[in-house]
Order: sequence, then C-alpha cells, then structure tokens
Amino acid sequence: MKFSIIKSGILVAFLLGASTIAQAQEISAMQAPKVVSPEVASDNSVSFRIFSPSANEVTLNGSWMGFGEKLPLQKEENGVWSVTTDPLESSMYHYNFFIDGVSAIDPTNPEALRDGTRYASLLMVSGEGSDVFELNEVPHGSISKVWYESPSLDSYRRMYVYTPPGYDSGKESYPVLYLLHGAGGDEDAWSALGRANDILDNLIAEGKAKPMIIVMTNGNAWQTSTLRNVPGAAAPTRETYAKFQGQFEKSLVKDVVPYIEKNYRVKADKENRALAGLSMGGAHTITASTEYPGTFGYIGVFSSGIFDANADMAELEKKFTALKASGVSKYWVACGKDDFVMESNKRLLSILDKTGLEHEYHESEGGHTWANWRDYLVLFAPMLFI
Amino acid sequence: MKFSIIKSGILVAFLLGASTIAQAQEISAMQAPKVVSPEVASDNSVSFRIFSPSANEVTLNGSWMGFGEKLPLQKEENGVWSVTTDPLESSMYHYNFFIDGVSAIDPTNPEALRDGTRYASLLMVSGEGSDVFELNEVPHGSISKVWYESPSLDSYRRMYVYTPPGYDSGKESYPVLYLLHGAGGDEDAWSALGRANDILDNLIAEGKAKPMIIVMTNGNAWQTSTLRNVPGAAAPTRETYAKFQGQFEKSLVKDVVPYIEKNYRVKADKENRALAGLSMGGAHTITASTEYPGTFGYIGVFSSGIFDANADMAELEKKFTALKASGVSKYWVACGKDDFVMESNKRLLSILDKTGLEHEYHESEGGHTWANWRDYLVLFAPMLFI
Repeated sequence: MKFSIIKSGILVAFLLGASTIAQAQEISAMQAPKVVSPEVASDNSVSFRIFSPSANEVTLNGSWMGFGEKLPLQKEENGVWSVTTDPLESSMYHYNFFIDGVSAIDPTNPEALRDGTRYASLLMVSGEGSDVFELNEVPHGSISKVWYESPSLDSYRRMYVYTPPGYDSGKESYPVLYLLHGAGGDEDAWSALGRANDILDNLIAEGKAKPMIIVMTNGNAWQTSTLRNVPGAAAPTRETYAKFQGQFEKSLVKDVVPYIEKNYRVKADKENRALAGLSMGGAHTITASTEYPGTFGYIGVFSSGIFDANADMAELEKKFTALKASGVSKYWVACGKDDFVMESNKRLLSILDKTGLEHEYHESEGGHTWANWRDYLVLFAPMLFI
Repeated sequence: MKFSIIKSGILVAFLLGASTIAQAQEISAMQAPKVVSPEVASDNSVSFRIFSPSANEVTLNGSWMGFGEKLPLQKEENGVWSVTTDPLESSMYHYNFFIDGVSAIDPTNPEALRDGTRYASLLMVSGEGSDVFELNEVPHGSISKVWYESPSLDSYRRMYVYTPPGYDSGKESYPVLYLLHGAGGDEDAWSALGRANDILDNLIAEGKAKPMIIVMTNGNAWQTSTLRNVPGAAAPTRETYAKFQGQFEKSLVKDVVPYIEKNYRVKADKENRALAGLSMGGAHTITASTEYPGTFGYIGVFSSGIFDANADMAELEKKFTALKASGVSKYWVACGKDDFVMESNKRLLSILDKTGLEHEYHESEGGHTWANWRDYLVLFAPMLFI
C-alpha cells in the first residue's frame, strides 16, 4: 500500500509533542537528566528518582511505610534526588513525594490514583502478591458510569456498574454484589483504588468466583457524583452529619436495586443479592441489611462495625434477630488487628454472637487500608452465590 | 427512627480521616495554614495558593498562558505562596505548579486531568464560555469502558462508549460518531480532556445535537488500553513508527464498527456513521475515510491534515475522488490559525478543493490545544445526522 499519511519519524515526533501539556513537558525534559521512577529491581527493592536541582529537601511516603513516616531522598550532583527501598512484598502500593514539604505525585509516573480529594502515584510490585490486582491476559468485564434518579434522595446520581465478561454478547442473567465505599470516597473508589473490576476479572477467569455484576454507588447522600454536591446541598459538618443517617441506605434499597433489576439482566432475589462495604460503607451495610431484612442473602462488613459506643444494643439485637430470621446465606466480617475501628468491629461481633447469627470472622494483619480492603474482596467474592 | 449507627460528630470525623492518604494529609494539614486554591473571584481573576515554607521558587503555568511561560508566585510570611491572574474568559483550563522546578498538581485541588503521561489540575472559570463543558442539571448519558477483540491488530483492546440519555431504558436505535484522539492520548482523552460526554449531554438537552452514541477508541495500535502495551509489543520509536501505518484505521473499520453494530442499538448505514479526529486522529480519519469510502457519511478533521510534505498527491486525489463519489453528507475541517500543523491542514484543503469534495473550513484563533478541540466538537456535533 503506497498511501501513507505518516511515514516520517520527524513528523511522528512532532505529533507526539502535540498537546500543550506534552509540549511544555518535552521542553523541560530536554533540559533535564532523564530519570526513571519508580524502578523495581529483580529483588523487589524499588528506586524512586526526581529531578530538582533547586529543592532543599525531598522526601517520600509510601503505603508500605508507617503513617506519616518520611523517607529522605539524597541529591546527586546532576540535580536528581533518589532513594532505594528494601525489597517489598509483591503487591499494589501508592506513594507521594514531598518537595520542600509540598505533596506531589511522581512526575515521571503516568499512573496516579485519586483517594477522595488527594492524589498519589501507583506502584505495582509485580509477582504472586499482585497478580489478582493486575490487568492480566484474561477476559475483561465492562465498567459503566451510569446515572439514575433517586426519589429517596430527591437527586439524580451516578454509580459505576461492572458487568462481567460475556455480558454484552450473552443472554444469561447474573447475581449482583452491591459494594460500598468508605468516608471520603465515592463511586470511583472501589474500581480505582480497590481494583474490584480487575479482581473479579481474575477470579472469574480462574473459576474462583461466579460471574456477577458489581454495583458501586456513591454513599455520600449529599453528593450526586464524584466531587459534585447535590445542587443546593453542602457537605455535612460534624453538626449536620446525623441528618443524612439512613438516607443513603434507603436509596440503595428503594432506588438503586430496582434500577439495576429493571435495566440489567439480573437474578432478582435475595439469594442473588450480596451487600458489602468498608468502614462507613460497612455501617451502611449493617443499616441496609437490618432495616430491610430479606433483601440481601450475602453480607460483608469490612473494617467497620457498630461505631456508636452508646448504641441501643437491645434495639440492635432485635434487628439482628429479624435479619437472622429472614435467612442469611453468609455473613462475613473482616478487620485488621491494628485497625482503629477494632472496638466498633467487636461490638458488631458481639451482637452476631449474642443473636446467634451465623458468621465468619477474618482478622488480618494491618489496619484501615486499601491493601486490606482489596484482600477482603479477594476472599469474599468467592463465597458469593454458591 | 431510633436506630442510629452514626450519630456522633466525633465518629464522623474519625471516619472522614479513614484512608491512609487522607490521614497523612489531615495531619499535615493541621500543621499548615488553610489555603484555598484555585479561587475564582467575581471578576474571573483567579488566585492560586500553595503552602511551602521551605521552597526557593514556586511558579505556575496555565493553559491560558503562553507555551512554557511561567508565572511566579510570591511567598508570604506564613509560608503560603500566591498569585492572582488578570480576569480570564469563562472556560475550562488546566495548570501546574512548579515547586523548585518540579511539575506538580495543585495539592488542594481535587480535580486533576491526565494528558498522556502527565497530570495537570483542572480550573473551571464558570460562565457562558464554560457552560457547554460543565456537568449541568440535564440528563446524562453513560460512559462505558468496553473490551473487544481486534483480529486486525491481533489484540484485545479497550474503548469508551458514550450512550445518550434514555439509551438503557429505551428501544430506539441511534447514529454513531467515532471520535479519535491525537498522539500521546488514548481512549480516555476525549472524555477526560475533551468533555465529549458533557458536551453531548448539554447539546442534546438543548436540542442542538441529535442523540447519538460516541465511540472513543485507542488509536495507538501497539496499545491495548491506557498506558498498556499489547503483550510483547513496545511503543514505536521514530524508526519503527511507520510499520503501524494504516493498522489502527483497518481495525476501526473491520473490528470496531462491526462490534458496535452487533452489540448496541445503532442505525448501521453510512448516513448514520460519522468519523472525526484531532491531530493524529485527524490523520486516522483521513486514512480510514479514503481507504474505506462509503463507510462514513460525516467526516471531521480537527487540527490535522496531510502530514507528509512528500505525499503522492496524485494518488491522494484519486482516493479523495473515490470518497466524493461514495457520497459524503458533510466534510468539516477545523484548524487554529497559530497551529503548527497549518501546512498539513492546507495540503488537505487543497486536495478537497482540487477534487471538488464539498467541505466547510473553520479557522479559529489559537493553536494545537484541547480548548480548540472541545470547541470544534461543540461546532461539529450539531451538523451530524440531520
């Protein structure tokens, strides 16, 4: 074929510098030593590098490090700061640089994560421990950003819906997992930080989880979607938070579940509905499952529990007894042994024990982290709909 | 309702600091003066602020400024650096800080954009000029990230599909716009940077554009999806780029169009297929439309043209003559008067003139920018399928 729009390498370079951001970056890149960051060595030690001839101090915090801990980088003569960690376990991590105290993502790392209102750079140390979180050569489901009317919240809202591989071309109906984020998160969190779609792609491909739909809602009743408040509404203050109590949970059962069951090919009964959430989403899970017993046959509470130390335990026991009577196929509770919500978690476990609601408890290492929540989903998803 | 999982403000604050990133940030935020950035004043001047007591120099580049231009911030006694711009036209912009020369997103701005491998912070100066790019109170279509097999490229690839409001619950069939990104971009670019979904939501709500599906592919034949190369493949060098010529265009017509027409409710004929692209995507548009005449009835070429100054113009004229004979309802060309691709754009216009292929040409202010490409989509979409 003789016809060739692009055949000159010079023209390609010219196109590759096409956007204004890229142009600016390419110019400054020409003036600077080329740095590679992050770089994972064969022993899984990781080198981080950043070019800044004029900074006074550069440090780093990574999700494998302690809370608030800072790892200093050393400046070389060419203006490149660097540091190499000890070998890390293969897993998914995130990190930030601090340039003279200012939090920054790694400018040479194209993969960044948003956690609420903050960004961090992604570090994947590939190996056995990361495999289930990675985009592997397996069939992939779709993620859709879908808007729905919520009469319960009187707003028009967004959720993410994962449909498993084969959904678009098939005719099968699927069970549904409703998967809830924590405080500070939104409908984007379970896919971006939790890798829920990658985890399910991988578990389904290995035959470890049933193909299922996952519905990831926005659990902030005052928001319509990521970073957007309901018109006229404001984010709650400490004083006004209580007025939203129970509202999201109602909208989940009254608005979201019916929307999904009308617009997707799903099996619409308790044995094919699961509900799980982390932290605030665990509290939403507890409320929604006890206020609407008989709706969800599978329940997962991650790093959460009964947050209110003064909760009316007699009233709660009644509700858990009613939930037990409605028939629960699996009630799974998980918490890290260093998690600051441990007391809340224990209050939940005590009610489950007292009411005889059969459950499994998984206590992991670590605390209130996405590393744990990803692991919990990997453990929980295979228990569903079997 | 007495049952209350969350009623204490203290518990809420404790939950709001739940993620590890948020925790670290909240701690450092307590030690620092509270800054607001960006802050748009009533006259549309914008103040940028960042806290860094120990930086030597902080500057800023914004998309309203010249290429490579740096606006210095001034340090106040409390360690906060700030600068206020002249009033800006209402529109969508992006910007970066440079902390001692290191490019950083604004740590207090929760909205960031990825352009290829780089991030910038979003600035929306709301008003008449931004309205069509904003998430307004109108019905919203869905964006889905969909994987498909591409036999032409022997790979499994991702595209984004916008379905208009009402698609999920309706039975109607829709026309389709295939919308292609430029070099350095990927399947995410037209929604994240181009706001294609917001633009169409708004135009459809105002009755200015027909409801349509938009398919946003990954035009990098060596990639499967954002930042992921085909297993075993590498990004092309200047020397190897030519080997990919025409491959993506073939996969678009042979793989993508059939996938969409099989799996979505679409009107599957030339009069209901449009193809448009920017820069490299404009070159893809030229190739795909001339190599496969009769496929697309509407064609848009943004900031692009015949990049090869030594192209065989006689051969090209034959192909454009065949395209003309196939029947083109609209051929629309747009370029900024300062765009560095102006010579390529002129070569395209000369072929269109010479072959008598009826077309419209829009020459805007400015250059090779997303500001222009968003504007071009706002102008082009209303011309389609009428």
